[in-house]
Amino acid sequence: MNYKYLLFVFATAFVCQLNMAQSVVEDFKPSSVNQTGKLFPQVNSEGRVRVSIPASEAQKVQLDIGGVKYDLKKDEKGVWTGESAPQVEGFHYYQLNVDGASVPDPGSIYFYGASRWGSAIEIPSPDQDFYALKDVPHGLVSQKLYFSKVTNSWRRCFVYTPAEYDKNISKHYPVLYLQHGSGEDETGWPTQGKANLILDNLMAAKKAVPMIVVMDNGYATKVQTAEAKGKGAFPFEEVMIDEIIPMIDASFRTIADREHRAMAGLSMGANQTITITMNNLDKFSYIAGFSGTSNYPRTDVIDPATFMGGKFKDGAALNKQIKLFWLGLGTAEPTPFPGSVKAFRNMLEKQGVKYTYYESPGTAHEWLTWRRDLNQFAGLIFK
Amino acid sequence: MNYKYLLFVFATAFVCQLNMAQSVVEDFKPSSVNQTGKLFPQVNSEGRVRVSIPASEAQKVQLDIGGVKYDLKKDEKGVWTGESAPQVEGFHYYQLNVDGASVPDPGSIYFYGASRWGSAIEIPSPDQDFYALKDVPHGLVSQKLYFSKVTNSWRRCFVYTPAEYDKNISKHYPVLYLQHGSGEDETGWPTQGKANLILDNLMAAKKAVPMIVVMDNGYATKVQTAEAKGKGAFPFEEVMIDEIIPMIDASFRTIADREHRAMAGLSMGANQTITITMNNLDKFSYIAGFSGTSNYPRTDVIDPATFMGGKFKDGAALNKQIKLFWLGLGTAEPTPFPGSVKAFRNMLEKQGVKYTYYESPGTAHEWLTWRRDLNQFAGLIFK
Repeated sequence: MNYKYLLFVFATAFVCQLNMAQSVVEDFKPSSVNQTGKLFPQVNSEGRVRVSIPASEAQKVQLDIGGVKYDLKKDEKGVWTGESAPQVEGFHYYQLNVDGASVPDPGSIYFYGASRWGSAIEIPSPDQDFYALKDVPHGLVSQKLYFSKVTNSWRRCFVYTPAEYDKNISKHYPVLYLQHGSGEDETGWPTQGKANLILDNLMAAKKAVPMIVVMDNGYATKVQTAEAKGKGAFPFEEVMIDEIIPMIDASFRTIADREHRAMAGLSMGANQTITITMNNLDKFSYIAGFSGTSNYPRTDVIDPATFMGGKFKDGAALNKQIKLFWLGLGTAEPTPFPGSVKAFRNMLEKQGVKYTYYESPGTAHEWLTWRRDLNQFAGLIFK
Repeated sequence: MNYKYLLFVFATAFVCQLNMAQSVVEDFKPSSVNQTGKLFPQVNSEGRVRVSIPASEAQKVQLDIGGVKYDLKKDEKGVWTGESAPQVEGFHYYQLNVDGASVPDPGSIYFYGASRWGSAIEIPSPDQDFYALKDVPHGLVSQKLYFSKVTNSWRRCFVYTPAEYDKNISKHYPVLYLQHGSGEDETGWPTQGKANLILDNLMAAKKAVPMIVVMDNGYATKVQTAEAKGKGAFPFEEVMIDEIIPMIDASFRTIADREHRAMAGLSMGANQTITITMNNLDKFSYIAGFSGTSNYPRTDVIDPATFMGGKFKDGAALNKQIKLFWLGLGTAEPTPFPGSVKAFRNMLEKQGVKYTYYESPGTAHEWLTWRRDLNQFAGLIFK
């Protein structure tokens, strides 16, 4: 028997335990997105997430966050408690696993993300003030239902109108179309994205001009009719161009021209944004991709002659048409985002297309990155 | 050994099994409030709820609905499935229990009710058309944030504006203040209450006049200052009268007088409605209690000389002031609702106070009753 190896294993295990025991800072506080009155989940100053759930007859309960499952421990009352390793600041989806059942944590409010309604937690960031609910005038977030002929279904969007909208009843406003990412929906930006609070705070500080923000659902399945065939690069483009924009222009006091229309999106929504705006430069003059570009997931060199049908061939012409091309990325984002965004930037630079690039320090492919992106981008448009 | 008894037990168990096996009609369909793409929970034509959840290592999994826990059975793949007894038509909260952990069903959309965000299911009703999403003009449901000095906190309400609101920009509208019940919040009426769809459908059929509907949170905790002491019967009355109504009148195009202001509420909200409106008849002329009255939970004879400080003493005077006093109740509601509503009606009749009474056939103390109440009441007001 290899005693040296065994000794090494035990020593390592002991040191690990010691490290874990020592490193958990006992300053846990209930999460800011807990259900009213719920003490758990909690977050500490290191960004660890502690959960707790009664499950007296369970054999094994785990916290599943950031792709890692952490075992909880049962106390004498049958309550399972435990915590994760420190998480990157920002907004993270998670779930509990009770004897093989993956379920939401009954302590958390639920959000739509990762293709399901479920638990999430907010790891406080030092700059959380810019998306905080503050004593400033607040705009409305309105649910608008509309029928889509393209998809043959009722769809929903949320429309932010600035606080002054109902005071200045003859004034018309520019519009930002703001899209979520893969596995998310139209609730993302007005809920975990905090889009309304970010805009409220920017406008109160005179850092952004008053604007309408439309947050729709980026998923669309086309009804296949002879008439519908071949229109648009993909169904959501057709819904956006033929249905959402005319509906918004008819329902709200917009300035309905390309100089007063922006589109931005995150991840899948960034890809959609670049595709839709570049196919419709007569309709948009501001373009932003948050944590995503239209070459995703590729990271290889882009050939402008063939990429997107040659849409980026003439950089000088694009610079005349596009008022702002904006890209953002979190410094802690995983592969392939850094590579594909870099390849896209290299292409823009090679073609001489002017663009603004922003890096969110220390954040991952999640909503804190995108809140910061919106905070930056919204301050630059329609000026 | 008592063989006769044993025979009886086995025979009874066999008959029970047979009954259960025979009585489950295999026409289950995914619930209308499932998460996108989820096959479970399901409902059959009898109103049984069938749930299914993978929990390979669990010892016991139950469906907890209507105050009864039903054992699920595990198949060879570790998936637990089972169904409830038939449920009354309408909207029911439920949860799953996995080895002692009470958790939301990962298949359902989540709603706020029973003092928590959790699962619910819709047992289809024959009259579901009146709250269906139909091809009619749809109003907006807008989230309004406002600061309350009474509670020293930011609060939220949802405001329904009719489809024509943004077309007729000089027209002013009457307002219905519509309150949820105990353990619920401002999301109840615009979500499971379907208030917007009910109003859309009524207005499209010319059965209701265009109106604004304000859905706020009935919970309020008062900040105790020398200045604040003694005002209002309870904190929510003060928030409603001093803050919500002025804020709504300042933010929306309302007709700001008692002839164009109604208040209705369900259960706890009914109690609040009757108290607040009777204390402020200079501000309201339409009053409705859905499944609740201000004598709740008492069922004994009401003495008008002392009840609510003698507010119902002069029936003739009330009939001149109140344009409509409206009460509703589901025929399947539990104690003490039928008794306390009856005692209140007896008092109204004794005092000669005119009122309209509606019974929702076959429904319990849940949202189908209240949707029907709103559908009835909203068709009668501001005419």
